[in-house]
Amino acid sequence: MTQQRWQKNAEWPLTIAAIVFLVAYAWEVIADLEGVAGVTAESIIWATWVIFMVDYVANLALAPQRWGWFRGHIFDLLVVVLPVLRPLRLLRVITLLTVLKRTAGAAFRERVVVYVAGASILLVFVASLAVLDADRSAPNSNITTFGDALWWAFVTITTVGYGDFSPVTDAGRLIAGGLMLGGIALLGVVTATLASWIVERVAQQEEDSRVATHGEIRALVQQIAELQATLDATAKTESSRASTTGH
Amino acid sequence: MTQQRWQKNAEWPLTIAAIVFLVAYAWEVIADLEGVAGVTAESIIWATWVIFMVDYVANLALAPQRWGWFRGHIFDLLVVVLPVLRPLRLLRVITLLTVLKRTAGAAFRERVVVYVAGASILLVFVASLAVLDADRSAPNSNITTFGDALWWAFVTITTVGYGDFSPVTDAGRLIAGGLMLGGIALLGVVTATLASWIVERVAQQEEDSRVATHGEIRALVQQIAELQATLDATAKTESSRASTTGH
Amino acid sequence: MTQQRWQKNAEWPLTIAAIVFLVAYAWEVIADLEGVAGVTAESIIWATWVIFMVDYVANLALAPQRWGWFRGHIFDLLVVVLPVLRPLRLLRVITLLTVLKRTAGAAFRERVVVYVAGASILLVFVASLAVLDADRSAPNSNITTFGDALWWAFVTITTVGYGDFSPVTDAGRLIAGGLMLGGIALLGVVTATLASWIVERVAQQEEDSRVATHGEIRALVQQIAELQATLDATAKTESSRASTTGH
Amino acid sequence: MTQQRWQKNAEWPLTIAAIVFLVAYAWEVIADLEGVAGVTAESIIWATWVIFMVDYVANLALAPQRWGWFRGHIFDLLVVVLPVLRPLRLLRVITLLTVLKRTAGAAFRERVVVYVAGASILLVFVASLAVLDADRSAPNSNITTFGDALWWAFVTITTVGYGDFSPVTDAGRLIAGGLMLGGIALLGVVTATLASWIVERVAQQEEDSRVATHGEIRALVQQIAELQATLDATAKTESSRASTTGH
Repeated sequence: MTQQRWQKNAEWPLTIAAIVFLVAYAWEVIADLEGVAGVTAESIIWATWVIFMVDYVANLALAPQRWGWFRGHIFDLLVVVLPVLRPLRLLRVITLLTVLKRTAGAAFRERVVVYVAGASILLVFVASLAVLDADRSAPNSNITTFGDALWWAFVTITTVGYGDFSPVTDAGRLIAGGLMLGGIALLGVVTATLASWIVERVAQQEEDSRVATHGEIRALVQQIAELQATLDATAKTESSRASTTGH
Repeated sequence: MTQQRWQKNAEWPLTIAAIVFLVAYAWEVIADLEGVAGVTAESIIWATWVIFMVDYVANLALAPQRWGWFRGHIFDLLVVVLPVLRPLRLLRVITLLTVLKRTAGAAFRERVVVYVAGASILLVFVASLAVLDADRSAPNSNITTFGDALWWAFVTITTVGYGDFSPVTDAGRLIAGGLMLGGIALLGVVTATLASWIVERVAQQEEDSRVATHGEIRALVQQIAELQATLDATAKTESSRASTTGH
Repeated sequence: MTQQRWQKNAEWPLTIAAIVFLVAYAWEVIADLEGVAGVTAESIIWATWVIFMVDYVANLALAPQRWGWFRGHIFDLLVVVLPVLRPLRLLRVITLLTVLKRTAGAAFRERVVVYVAGASILLVFVASLAVLDADRSAPNSNITTFGDALWWAFVTITTVGYGDFSPVTDAGRLIAGGLMLGGIALLGVVTATLASWIVERVAQQEEDSRVATHGEIRALVQQIAELQATLDATAKTESSRASTTGH
Repeated sequence: MTQQRWQKNAEWPLTIAAIVFLVAYAWEVIADLEGVAGVTAESIIWATWVIFMVDYVANLALAPQRWGWFRGHIFDLLVVVLPVLRPLRLLRVITLLTVLKRTAGAAFRERVVVYVAGASILLVFVASLAVLDADRSAPNSNITTFGDALWWAFVTITTVGYGDFSPVTDAGRLIAGGLMLGGIALLGVVTATLASWIVERVAQQEEDSRVATHGEIRALVQQIAELQATLDATAKTESSRASTTGH
């Protein structure tokens, strides 16, 4: 079977696996599970990991040119082979964004907005989980409840950064770094979308000084073509008469 | 009577109700009212709530297709049916923005600026009230006077975030979240408006490399039309003479 | 004499007065002057105030329609009549920006950059002076040296906001507010200028899909005009011959 | 030999010198070298300085008009003649950006992105080294390990600014200032690039209302030229026949 078919069929299972993983992980972290419950959650998480692993191997096997696909998916490799690095495991959640991609509306700007909003919410949620997981048990850490973690993540992605909470472990700071980059991206996309919208609106308002469009140029082209036609007609009658008179 | 007429007539009463509500709420919170005064303020606030309630019901009753209107105004519903959540009550103030919309000038960019400036000031003012209301009495809260709340709100909406003050209650943090999003929007609109303005100015300056406008294209079209006319004329004289000579 | 002439002649004296004022103020604040030196600095500051006062009155007197000019210069009025509010005195420095306006280069974007850079530096410098002046003597204030004030101002205008220093007096917070707005403006202008520049560069690169310019349209118009001319010529020879043959 | 040839030949040696310098400096600072190791690192750093010095002198000597080149390279002068100011020494690293310039792809936006990403990473790395170097030994400084310095630099360039770490020495704050400006530039470029991209995508989508391009106008011009040609042909046959009939 081809890679296309595999990917088509694998999409939903992967999405569900990502959701299951996220739920299990959230449950484990927020409830700070111990004993049986903890083991259950962990095993669910590992089960989802197996699914991603299988998908990666299958893709590699079915890829028309393996080496090319491999080189183009180093990131997926990291996600799959380094599940030991707990924060990295969360990258699986990115699979969920593909859903957003589909569900999004037609107009480009709308799509961008939906996508960014979804990605930001997911990022904030995942980052708070991961930071709580990483920092909770650290000495002199101040992020110890999910509420605080969520608050910290929001304060960080908006680049406000009160500093009432901040990660102290390396893992926590790595996650924070990702969150800050997310914040810059968020700010950038919001501004850029607004700019493109305002530029458009301003143009629409002052109708006459509106930018010339492809459509208008096409109209022009067509008009001139007709002109050409008439001219050719005239030329023909000319020459025909020319011959008759010449005779 | 139609929904349009209702909305037209209801606009001013609602605006006034929103102002009265805001004043009463500000008075109650800033003065930290007790006893009779407190009861008075509360009853005024509830009175304004009744007005909004009536408006919502009337709209629902007069809407041509009820279900459609209902689905399109979930937000209004929340504002009306959840006044118990004190912060949510403040959303009524949004009514005031409709006034801004009208009073604003003609040019699109000017309108955006006026609107955003007004919305930001309102947001800062309302958020400081709400945070003070939520956090004042909380243990180990550091926002205890309106001055501090105002300062905190300003530091937050500009995304500076010193952290000398920050909310500790869930309600307070919810409000802070709204304020931060407002800050990102503010930053975005300011930048976007400036961008659209600079792009325009740059274009105007280098007259010759200015973008071609709708107006210019229209001129072209007209010019070519005349050309066509002359050509048709020539063609006619041609053919007429063709016949005479043919004769 | 006309208002134009007055303003032309007054420009340099005002600029110098603003510089003198700034130097005297900086000297007074940084050195925390007492006794004779303090009195000297204060009197210099008041002297400069007189100059601004005179300029305002003269403008009002010479204005073609007084009321219109008055309404359009409320801000200048505040600067002049409220020198008691120490922070407000600093607004005189705005006069210096007019110099920047002149010295700036031709191209619009370059001018914007020079102007914003100059304004930001001035803002940071003035704000640190004012905050130091306002907070130094306040209880539990942490801005006590000019170095700290400068550092604080820079951290604030870039919206980083560590919170290691922050004003505690109302005057100080007022100044901080101005500085934060300055920061948002700074961020906005930098981004907007970059955007307009990148959009331009991208367009230049892909020559063919470059936006159609005014210049190109002008060329087109001219080309069609020539076409029209040739056509008219043909038409004339036509008709003339038509008459000859008709004869 | 000409300046061009010198610069062409000097480019790689300078790049390597910058890398060697950076490595030696990083090694010295991170490992907080003492004794022999410290002396070794220092001497390597001075050796690289000599290379930059030689390059500067050679450029000055080979420049067609010395004075012009000198005036246009004050910055290089500072880098070379003030190596005593330890932070300034780091400016040599800027040489590395020239490599980025070359390695970057074709499309303008891609190039901008690569360039900015590279510059930011370099800036963060260098700034953390410099701040650690400057603040480590200062009393009541809180940046004492490279990990903390890196974290601080990242928190600063993203303008989040928790304030859990912040420099206390003048040198450290100078570096921080540069980092903050870098942050504003970063934010600006990200947003601007996104804006230019979104504007383009939106335009592409709504094909018909796409902006008229240079290419389309060129097509038009050509079309009209052909029209002119036909017309001239007609005119010629006209006149020729005119003469024959006239005969």
